[in-house]
Amino acid sequence: MNAEIIAVGSELLLGQIANTNAQFLSQQLAMLGINVYFHTVVGDNAGRLEQAVKTAQTRANLIIFTGGLGPTKDDLTKETIARLLGRRLVIDEEALRAIEVYFARTNRPMTENNKKQALVLEGSTVLKNEHGMAPGMALVADGITYMLLPGPPKEMRPMFKKYGNAFLRRTFSLSERIESRVLRFFGIGESALETAIADLIDAQSNPTIAPLAGDGEVTLRLTAKHQDEAEAKRLLDEVESAILARVGRHCYGYNDETLFTKTLERLKERGWTIASAESLTGGLFLEQLTALPGASQVVQGGVVCYTNGVKEQVLGIPRPLLEAEGAVSEPCARLLAENVRAMCDADIGISFTGVAGPDPLEGHPPGTVYIGIAVRGRDATVHRLMLSGTRDAIRIRTAKYGCFFLLEMLAADC
Amino acid sequence: MNAEIIAVGSELLLGQIANTNAQFLSQQLAMLGINVYFHTVVGDNAGRLEQAVKTAQTRANLIIFTGGLGPTKDDLTKETIARLLGRRLVIDEEALRAIEVYFARTNRPMTENNKKQALVLEGSTVLKNEHGMAPGMALVADGITYMLLPGPPKEMRPMFKKYGNAFLRRTFSLSERIESRVLRFFGIGESALETAIADLIDAQSNPTIAPLAGDGEVTLRLTAKHQDEAEAKRLLDEVESAILARVGRHCYGYNDETLFTKTLERLKERGWTIASAESLTGGLFLEQLTALPGASQVVQGGVVCYTNGVKEQVLGIPRPLLEAEGAVSEPCARLLAENVRAMCDADIGISFTGVAGPDPLEGHPPGTVYIGIAVRGRDATVHRLMLSGTRDAIRIRTAKYGCFFLLEMLAADC
Repeated sequence: MNAEIIAVGSELLLGQIANTNAQFLSQQLAMLGINVYFHTVVGDNAGRLEQAVKTAQTRANLIIFTGGLGPTKDDLTKETIARLLGRRLVIDEEALRAIEVYFARTNRPMTENNKKQALVLEGSTVLKNEHGMAPGMALVADGITYMLLPGPPKEMRPMFKKYGNAFLRRTFSLSERIESRVLRFFGIGESALETAIADLIDAQSNPTIAPLAGDGEVTLRLTAKHQDEAEAKRLLDEVESAILARVGRHCYGYNDETLFTKTLERLKERGWTIASAESLTGGLFLEQLTALPGASQVVQGGVVCYTNGVKEQVLGIPRPLLEAEGAVSEPCARLLAENVRAMCDADIGISFTGVAGPDPLEGHPPGTVYIGIAVRGRDATVHRLMLSGTRDAIRIRTAKYGCFFLLEMLAADC
Repeated sequence: MNAEIIAVGSELLLGQIANTNAQFLSQQLAMLGINVYFHTVVGDNAGRLEQAVKTAQTRANLIIFTGGLGPTKDDLTKETIARLLGRRLVIDEEALRAIEVYFARTNRPMTENNKKQALVLEGSTVLKNEHGMAPGMALVADGITYMLLPGPPKEMRPMFKKYGNAFLRRTFSLSERIESRVLRFFGIGESALETAIADLIDAQSNPTIAPLAGDGEVTLRLTAKHQDEAEAKRLLDEVESAILARVGRHCYGYNDETLFTKTLERLKERGWTIASAESLTGGLFLEQLTALPGASQVVQGGVVCYTNGVKEQVLGIPRPLLEAEGAVSEPCARLLAENVRAMCDADIGISFTGVAGPDPLEGHPPGTVYIGIAVRGRDATVHRLMLSGTRDAIRIRTAKYGCFFLLEMLAADC
């Protein structure tokens, strides 16, 4: 079977928003094993929408629409399809009640046009909208499956995941389970990772292995298909083990985990607190950690020591050291980590000093970075990095390397 | 005239990327006064691409393609159009030289298939690629204008802006100048702003006034059309003055400016340095400032005082004050600003203390925020805010309010 996704909305044709709905649905359909051959975007215009539907009918047996289900006269997706298929629109009582409840709860008067949102194609399966008012619907007519979804992503996505997906599984008798798992890597480049597991990638069929690089990280998406869910998971476990046996050192987490969530989690488990001294990162490391709920159990605080004056006066780095070794140096990174740890009375002190660019500093090119890690009662360690990229890329990768080295230390320590 | 944008690439149909090229081009065409009636996405498949082109030929007189101009055998946009239009593909010598130079410079061997990138449709206007290898091209055939652009946005966007745009102006004799200007507002909600200038919005025709809200800010895009560029600018000036007469206090900048770039710029002009004490923002304020090149002239550094221990030990807030008034209080904000200023020997100290949420703190609900500003030799001032939204939204809006109050103070000070 093959699908076409038709997004309806003039705001897309004006470039006010990107068609992220088509992207989301394409991913979802790929996971179901359904090929998508076309995306179409058309405005809020009955004639052109009709034309787009007729074109799709000649080339797809699944047509998914997003948008045009709202209360205004510009919303005409279901009206157009009703006309084309010769179906009536009928009130869905459950949807109507939900709309009435919504207005009652928000203390707003319900205008007559809102009833229009409860109209559905006669004989269709209604897809409940748990995050908005307009229900979706799906039906099969003359061998073609039509699914109508609302335009706002926060309504469309959960509706598709919960109801649309199940409808397609039933309609197309998709009995295979698709299980997918993302492995997240850091500190290894995409090509080095691919080289290390080249034979596994070449031999892949089920599960498939799809690498993706971005923001200094590489991910591998493993996707297995099987009638039996447990067996699909076992297939994933197997290929994951084979991969981790080679590059496990660089794998820090799964799926939606980030280096920062992982670091916070590990520190919390350990019951350790942290403080940072940030020069080139300018607060980025702590900002990322404190963006996470629960940071207060772990983060004590820190010092952004952008100038040598602050390094000296606030963090007690002796001027002779700054003059002899420079701020971008191993001894400076070490002392920054030790002193900020002591000052903030934390279990771990971490420091970031280096050159974010665009200009060199103290004769060092952009990308020269020292990260110091001091643990209460132990000698501090310092890691030296040579990073490439823009100022932004160097800063974020530096902060991520901080997490990576912390995780490595915490793992070795267990 | 009306346009269709055809994006070619299986990665779009797999949902790996969103079709941001269509969004960008739609915006650009809207600015030229060209209607866009359809977007189509099709995979790297000659048959289906041909079908998409034929459909577009029946309904558009401008067809813009993105993608499929690269060196691999999957790249077949120009080959398909050549076949459909009965045109030959010929080597463009300038493009070929640019490709050879590129490989020589990066010390990589140039494989034969890269020559394919220098092929262009015979008789077309070649659009130079200044950020990659594959040139674009444009031509008119049987009353339809075809434009082929590369897929990577960082190549496509500058190519369209510099060369594609000019080709369309010539071809469609678009003599009207479209001038547009974005006014950026902070500290005022979208509906309050719209209410304040409702009559101007109602009366708009040329320039048009388009409000947009996001990230706690509101922007107004003013767009004027006129044969004469100077006159278009005068029209913009006129409506801008009318708007600023009412809500000018909240307008902090134009176009791509941000509160952070503006703050850095104003402090630099003034020759003032800054230090921050950040509790709920966790380093976000300084992180945003230090993300900008040239921050080192202005930013001294600061302290992330996430815990009361750090507020007390590092920033010298007396424990009795913390116990009596709390960390989330006017006196604490004041002293944090004063002390961090003195400690870092900066001209300005700014402090952020409050509740980011999700949980209340010291009996204050999330969104309770105090921002202290201390200037060398003056009494410190403290602003109290009650913000709403998620933890992330409260943190970023707090940092932005810091900029807003600084800009207000610097403006009043001139």
